[in-house]
Amino acid sequence: MRIEVLNTGTELLLGNTLNTHGGWFGRQLFTMGLRVARQATVPDGDAIREAFEEMVVRADALIITGGLGPTSDDLTREIVAETLGLELHQDEHALRTLQAFFSIRGKTMAPANLRQALIPVGADVLPNPNGTAPGLYLPPRINGRSSCAVFLLPGPPRELYPMFHEEVAPRLRALSGIESIPGVCELKFTGIGESDFHHGIDAQLAAMPGLEYGYCARMGEVDLRLIGNPEQVAAARTLVLEKFSKYLISDDGSSMEATVIRLLREKGLKLATAESCTGGLIAHRLTNVPGSSEVFTHGWITYANEAKTDQLGVPAEIISSHGAVSEETARAMAEGALIAGNADLSLAITGIAGPTGGTEDKPVGTAWLALAEKGGATTARKIYHPRNRKDFKDAASQSALDLIRRRLSTTR
Amino acid sequence: MRIEVLNTGTELLLGNTLNTHGGWFGRQLFTMGLRVARQATVPDGDAIREAFEEMVVRADALIITGGLGPTSDDLTREIVAETLGLELHQDEHALRTLQAFFSIRGKTMAPANLRQALIPVGADVLPNPNGTAPGLYLPPRINGRSSCAVFLLPGPPRELYPMFHEEVAPRLRALSGIESIPGVCELKFTGIGESDFHHGIDAQLAAMPGLEYGYCARMGEVDLRLIGNPEQVAAARTLVLEKFSKYLISDDGSSMEATVIRLLREKGLKLATAESCTGGLIAHRLTNVPGSSEVFTHGWITYANEAKTDQLGVPAEIISSHGAVSEETARAMAEGALIAGNADLSLAITGIAGPTGGTEDKPVGTAWLALAEKGGATTARKIYHPRNRKDFKDAASQSALDLIRRRLSTTR
Repeated sequence: MRIEVLNTGTELLLGNTLNTHGGWFGRQLFTMGLRVARQATVPDGDAIREAFEEMVVRADALIITGGLGPTSDDLTREIVAETLGLELHQDEHALRTLQAFFSIRGKTMAPANLRQALIPVGADVLPNPNGTAPGLYLPPRINGRSSCAVFLLPGPPRELYPMFHEEVAPRLRALSGIESIPGVCELKFTGIGESDFHHGIDAQLAAMPGLEYGYCARMGEVDLRLIGNPEQVAAARTLVLEKFSKYLISDDGSSMEATVIRLLREKGLKLATAESCTGGLIAHRLTNVPGSSEVFTHGWITYANEAKTDQLGVPAEIISSHGAVSEETARAMAEGALIAGNADLSLAITGIAGPTGGTEDKPVGTAWLALAEKGGATTARKIYHPRNRKDFKDAASQSALDLIRRRLSTTR
Repeated sequence: MRIEVLNTGTELLLGNTLNTHGGWFGRQLFTMGLRVARQATVPDGDAIREAFEEMVVRADALIITGGLGPTSDDLTREIVAETLGLELHQDEHALRTLQAFFSIRGKTMAPANLRQALIPVGADVLPNPNGTAPGLYLPPRINGRSSCAVFLLPGPPRELYPMFHEEVAPRLRALSGIESIPGVCELKFTGIGESDFHHGIDAQLAAMPGLEYGYCARMGEVDLRLIGNPEQVAAARTLVLEKFSKYLISDDGSSMEATVIRLLREKGLKLATAESCTGGLIAHRLTNVPGSSEVFTHGWITYANEAKTDQLGVPAEIISSHGAVSEETARAMAEGALIAGNADLSLAITGIAGPTGGTEDKPVGTAWLALAEKGGATTARKIYHPRNRKDFKDAASQSALDLIRRRLSTTR
C-alpha cells in the first residue's frame, strides 16, 4: 500500500514551525509494517490543490495535515471536496460537538467556526476531543472517482496524535490487509556508533527475510528498531545482543534517564548530583522522569570554585594544585555531595564546555566524572567530547548518566 | 522565482532522523526575500528519479539534499545526470581534494569514494571543507533542456549549512535578481500569545507594501520576524514596539537566557538559583550561554523538603505550615540561596510538575517564583502552566527567567 503524507501550512515552509509530522508518521507507520512513500509540504491556499491532485492519483492512502481551522486560509476541506466532486453539508452531530466544546469552556462560538462542521457527503467525521477541528475520512471510491483513501487531520500535535491512534491507525490497518500487529523491539545503545552496527550486524539482519530494521543516531546514543513477526524479532534481538549487550541502555524504548531512575527505585537508592560544566542538565534530565523525586533529592550546580568549596567541601588546595578540572576535584565533589545530600550514590562532573577556557593539557571538551557510593569506593573517569557547547553538555550528561547506569546494572 | 526543496533519505521517512532541513531552508531564503514553494521528502533510490522529474519541470530552482555519499544507495548524482542527459566525468581537482581529505586525517581512501569525484559535464563543483561529498551546481539550460537551476548538496547539517552560505546563497541571489539584501529584524516576546499579535497588529503590518513578516510561537515565547527594505522594517518595528514593548525579550534574536546573562554581566551582578520543580532546567539554560560562569556561580536543585531545609535554610515550620509549594517557601528558598551563594540576586521556584502530586487547591502546573536581592525586597509571583511534565518545566523556566529579566531591565 502506497501511503503519502501532505503537510500544509505556510509557517512550515517559512521555517517558523519545525515540521515534526513527517518523521512522526514514519515511526507510527513503521511499527504497523507500513512506510511513507513520499512526504510533501506546501503553503496554505492553492498550492494545496496542486499537490493534492497529484498525490491522490499516485497514492493508495493520503494523509493530509493542517488547514481545518476556522480562518480564511484554512481551505483543505473545501479544496479536497471540490477536487473529488463532493458536496459539503452541515453535519448536525459535528455542529453540536463544536458548540459543546465552546460552552464547556464558557466561551461563545464565533460564526467562523461554523465552517468546521461542514462535511463532504459520504465522509466519516473523526472526533477531536482536544480541539475544534474534527478530522475527516474519505474512503476509497467515495464517489466512484478516486481509489485513494484520504485522511484530513488537524495540524497541532496534541490534536493530531490521539486522533491518529484512535481513528486513523485502525482504518489504515484494515485498508492494508496487514492483520496482525507485527513484533516490534526498540533497543537503545550508548558508547558505540551507528557505523559499528553497519559493519558488525547489518549483513546478518538484512539476510533475515521479512525483518525490517532502522537506526536512529543521536548525541551519545544509537537506537535500533526491529519489526517483523514476533519470532523473527526475537531472533534478531538475540543476534544483536550477543554482539552489543554491553552497550545496551534499554530494550523497551526507555530513555537513559528513565533507566537510571528505574534502577535507583528498584534498589531503593538515593542519588545526589554535583555539576560544574553540564550546568544542571543531568538534574534536568533526571527530573524529566515522573517519580524521580523519590530517589533524587539533592543537586548542586557548582560553577565557581568557591561553590565547590563552600557547598561540597572540596579543599581549596585540591583545586589550586590539581585544577578545577581534574580527577581529584571530581572525586572530592562526588564525596562532598554524598555527605551533604545524605545520599547512597553521588555523581560529580567538572570540565570545560567552551568555547573558551581550554588549554593544551585540558582542551575544550575535557571533563572528569566521579561516582561515590556510601560505604564503597569512589570511581573516576575522564571523558573527551570536543564539540560545541550545547553538544558537549548533551554528550557529557549522557556519559555521566551511563556511569550511574553501569554501576547500578552490575551491583546486585 | 519558484524554489523547491527535495530531501532524500530513507531514514527521514522512517522517522529515524528528524528532517530539519525544510524549515532551515525556509528561514535562510526568507531573509533573502525568497520562499520555498514546495518541499518533498523521498526515500533513497528510484523514488528520487520520480520526484526529480516532476520538480525540475515545475521549479526555477531546485535544491536537493542527500545521496552524495560513497555507498550504493547514494544515487542522487547519477539520477540527476541521467535525467538531464549529462555525461559524468572524473574531475581531477575534485579527486585531489578528496584524496587530500583522507591523507590529512591519516586515512586511506576507499575505492567507493572515487564516485564522489564524478561530475556531470558543465556542472560547478561546490567545495565541501567539512566532508567528502562535494556539492554540485547545474546552471539553467546546462544542456539546452531544463530551465531549472539545480543544486545537489550533502545531507549532514554541518556540511550543508556552510556550503549553502558560501556557494548556494550567492547563486540564488544572482538568479533571483534581488540585488540588495533586505532589512531583517527579529523580535522575541514573552507573556503574550500569537493571537494577540494577529488581533492587535496583523492588519497594520499587512497594509505595509512589500513588508514580509512571520511568527514563530514556542513554549512561552512568540518570535516575530520582519523583512523588507530597511525603512519599512524600521517603521514596522516601531509600530510593533508601540503596542508590545513591555513583552519584548530582545530585538536582535537573542534568547531569553542570553538576554538575562547579558543584563547580569552589564550590571556586574551575580545570580544564584534554587530550583525544585524545574529540576535544574533554569541553570541548564543559563549555562548554555558562553560566559555565564562570570555571573552564575551557585545553583541548587532542592527536590526534597530536607534539601530545602539543610541547603537553603528554609525553616521546617514554613514547609509544614504553608506547604512546599507556597509563597512563603519560595521566598525562604530565594533568601537562603542569596546568602549561601553569596549572590547579588537569587531566584527560587517551587511547584508541582506532575503527573501526580496535585491537589484541589494546588493543581498540577502550579508554582511559586521568588526573586531576592541583596539589600532589596524579595518579590514573589504565582504561575500556573497546566501542561505535561516537560512542557510545564519549559514554561515555568521561561516565566522564571522573565522575572529576572524584568527586574534587571527596570533596575537602573
